Amino acid sequence: MIPNLVTVMDKPVLDLEKTLIEATSVVERWFRMAWQDYTPPFYCSVDLRNSGFKLAPVDTNLFPGGFNNLASDMLPLAVQAAMSAIEKYCPSAKNLLLIPEKHTRNQHYLESVSRLMEILRQTGLDIRLGSLSDKAAQSSSITLPDGPTVVVEPVKRINSGRRVGLDDFNPCIILLNNDLSAGTPDVLQNVYEQNLFPPLHAGWTIRRKSNHFAAYDDVVRRFSRTVGIDPWLVNPYFARCSDVDFEEKAGAECLAEQVQSVLNRIRRKYREYGIKEKPFAIIKADAGTYGMGIMTVSDAKEVLNLNRRQRNKMAVIKDGQAVREVLVQEGVHSFERVNDAVAEPVVYMIDRYVVGGFYRVNASRDIDENLNVPGAEFVPLPFSQQHTLPDVTAAPGTSEPNRYYLYGVVARLALLAASVELEKTDPDMQ
Amino acid sequence: MIPNLVTVMDKPVLDLEKTLIEATSVVERWFRMAWQDYTPPFYCSVDLRNSGFKLAPVDTNLFPGGFNNLASDMLPLAVQAAMSAIEKYCPSAKNLLLIPEKHTRNQHYLESVSRLMEILRQTGLDIRLGSLSDKAAQSSSITLPDGPTVVVEPVKRINSGRRVGLDDFNPCIILLNNDLSAGTPDVLQNVYEQNLFPPLHAGWTIRRKSNHFAAYDDVVRRFSRTVGIDPWLVNPYFARCSDVDFEEKAGAECLAEQVQSVLNRIRRKYREYGIKEKPFAIIKADAGTYGMGIMTVSDAKEVLNLNRRQRNKMAVIKDGQAVREVLVQEGVHSFERVNDAVAEPVVYMIDRYVVGGFYRVNASRDIDENLNVPGAEFVPLPFSQQHTLPDVTAAPGTSEPNRYYLYGVVARLALLAASVELEKTDPDMQ
Repeated sequence: MIPNLVTVMDKPVLDLEKTLIEATSVVERWFRMAWQDYTPPFYCSVDLRNSGFKLAPVDTNLFPGGFNNLASDMLPLAVQAAMSAIEKYCPSAKNLLLIPEKHTRNQHYLESVSRLMEILRQTGLDIRLGSLSDKAAQSSSITLPDGPTVVVEPVKRINSGRRVGLDDFNPCIILLNNDLSAGTPDVLQNVYEQNLFPPLHAGWTIRRKSNHFAAYDDVVRRFSRTVGIDPWLVNPYFARCSDVDFEEKAGAECLAEQVQSVLNRIRRKYREYGIKEKPFAIIKADAGTYGMGIMTVSDAKEVLNLNRRQRNKMAVIKDGQAVREVLVQEGVHSFERVNDAVAEPVVYMIDRYVVGGFYRVNASRDIDENLNVPGAEFVPLPFSQQHTLPDVTAAPGTSEPNRYYLYGVVARLALLAASVELEKTDPDMQ
Repeated sequence: MIPNLVTVMDKPVLDLEKTLIEATSVVERWFRMAWQDYTPPFYCSVDLRNSGFKLAPVDTNLFPGGFNNLASDMLPLAVQAAMSAIEKYCPSAKNLLLIPEKHTRNQHYLESVSRLMEILRQTGLDIRLGSLSDKAAQSSSITLPDGPTVVVEPVKRINSGRRVGLDDFNPCIILLNNDLSAGTPDVLQNVYEQNLFPPLHAGWTIRRKSNHFAAYDDVVRRFSRTVGIDPWLVNPYFARCSDVDFEEKAGAECLAEQVQSVLNRIRRKYREYGIKEKPFAIIKADAGTYGMGIMTVSDAKEVLNLNRRQRNKMAVIKDGQAVREVLVQEGVHSFERVNDAVAEPVVYMIDRYVVGGFYRVNASRDIDENLNVPGAEFVPLPFSQQHTLPDVTAAPGTSEPNRYYLYGVVARLALLAASVELEKTDPDMQ
């Protein structure tokens, strides 16, 4: 089952599909060459939005959860991709330390951790879980959804402080599934002898969405030139404001100005394509995740007149971080529907390979709202077919593999942007 | 649906399954380390036989056909594996020249070539077909089963003879799907600037099965030590005779002696395991393929008393090659059944990854006969589930992924043996 595109204006994305399906060998070679210059993140998930006239990434997650939502038939792709990554970084690796989020009582998240451990074990690794919690001086055990009980042990420095590990566990690779929103812990500083993925500057204490989308701009410009498309079709406009303080009403003018500018640029494009929809912008914290600190505006004046509730909502995000830097991003309508519910595709990658995806389906949200709200009930709908081998003979919009292939291409552009971003923001390279 | 094992003695293979499933992280790490020392062939298929008390490769094909028989759901694994291979050998590759067998009117073979082209195109390559036929001074076109017409062009030297290609086509990779039984063509000699896979000495003019199984002996010895199994469980005994001439009745004594020796060794093992089946040996050409020149014997005397028809059958194989060197191999019963038909698993690999498999099902053959006879009607039954993620909680013999995983492990041992063999027999390394 392929979600319906409920829009009168689906020609631009169908044309995009046609162009990319016909150009697969060019597209794939372009990526192959790009990965000669950049190292992909260990893993990544990308939230996409498809409005029929635009298909764009809106969030690139370097600490992906949700592995439990992938179709189990496609998991061998994840194993194979992980094998390729492990072999590249640490061919003789025996041990991998996985550091999950602290909210280890969330059943969905535990299912994802469990699935991720299963994938990684098949690459020939012993996997143990480490905790960054200050309180975790002792081990604790959690019972995974599929039965086994797993011990989470306090992460510590070992080998005279030169390495990071656990008691009796000296990993070659430390894989963070914790986005470090609470800050970069001392125990992970100055790790030189081991592989630490993603690097610390990918954590939300340091990472900025605006750096990512600036890199994405650049990646999309080069890609669009190669395949001959309008970069706007896959790229949302964005701007940023620093020194914003929602509590103190500081920085509202900058926000209003940038919202105005983004909306104006969208209007020009809508006129060019004859799009009748109402333009809108998304305001979100430049650092941070979990769908916190996000609002939708369709008029710059709205940001000048926020009420207390709205300001409180925007002021603080995950782990109590205060919001100072703000991203203003072109809103992309979600016109994909499963039954009547809005469906947003999420694409998963390990190393440079797309390993699967699913639709985040949410009946209770509107087309211009963020679907990834804390505690939101969403129904994951795994991509029901493979995404790798498009059907060159199918009419645009009729083939599931073709739509998923398209999603895989756009998601990989975001993946490549993350690689460029992480290289540019690497403090050791400054 | 998983084929039935129709045998009273299935404990050895069920124990093997249990041992390997429990040791997956050790097994996978062992392979990861092995691939640090050896380069896998570009692609490979391995015919296995499962008797319940033994699971062994009987043929390792370095020019695999049959890609059309793989489950289409699993094809993304093939694409991903091929991407990884292309990136390793020729990261900037734009063109790949595929050289198929000459019998291009065989519809099944054409379907395999078509599928292979589809897989390779998705790695970002333009694929064209080249012909080694002397008569192919001009291009000819063939209509592929799925519709498109493809041109097969004469392979020639280009760039002042330094490279191999077609008119207006300068490939980075030349991929042979032609096993060179007819000899090594001059046009492929002395290719230094391009990647030629598999190397010429993998062609049946030069390759010997006995070299492969000698390398397999060595690989299995090391693997068995690591995981703690009896190497015989996955390894057939073998011996060889040179200077055999079936037409002239020369070399029969050597054959009888080696058959006797192999049968004696089998009997000892059967006694050790309490196996009541009748031991048998397979006699086949040491060079060659296509199931030609193969016979089954259960008594050494049989080879001393071959009638004219039997001698003629053994004397000449594919492309009229005369048989001089002969392999005597322990026979492995096929006790897998789909309905009442004998089912032999075939496992496909690209680079170092298992990308799928199928059962060769043949109702008209007996358990100790070769199923791959020319023109034999066999029904391919694609492996119906993934093979990468075993179910550690399943009882041995009840889980499809577990049986396929087991097959994948044994097939990869043969793949590794092929790598060792090709390195040892490389004329440039002598």
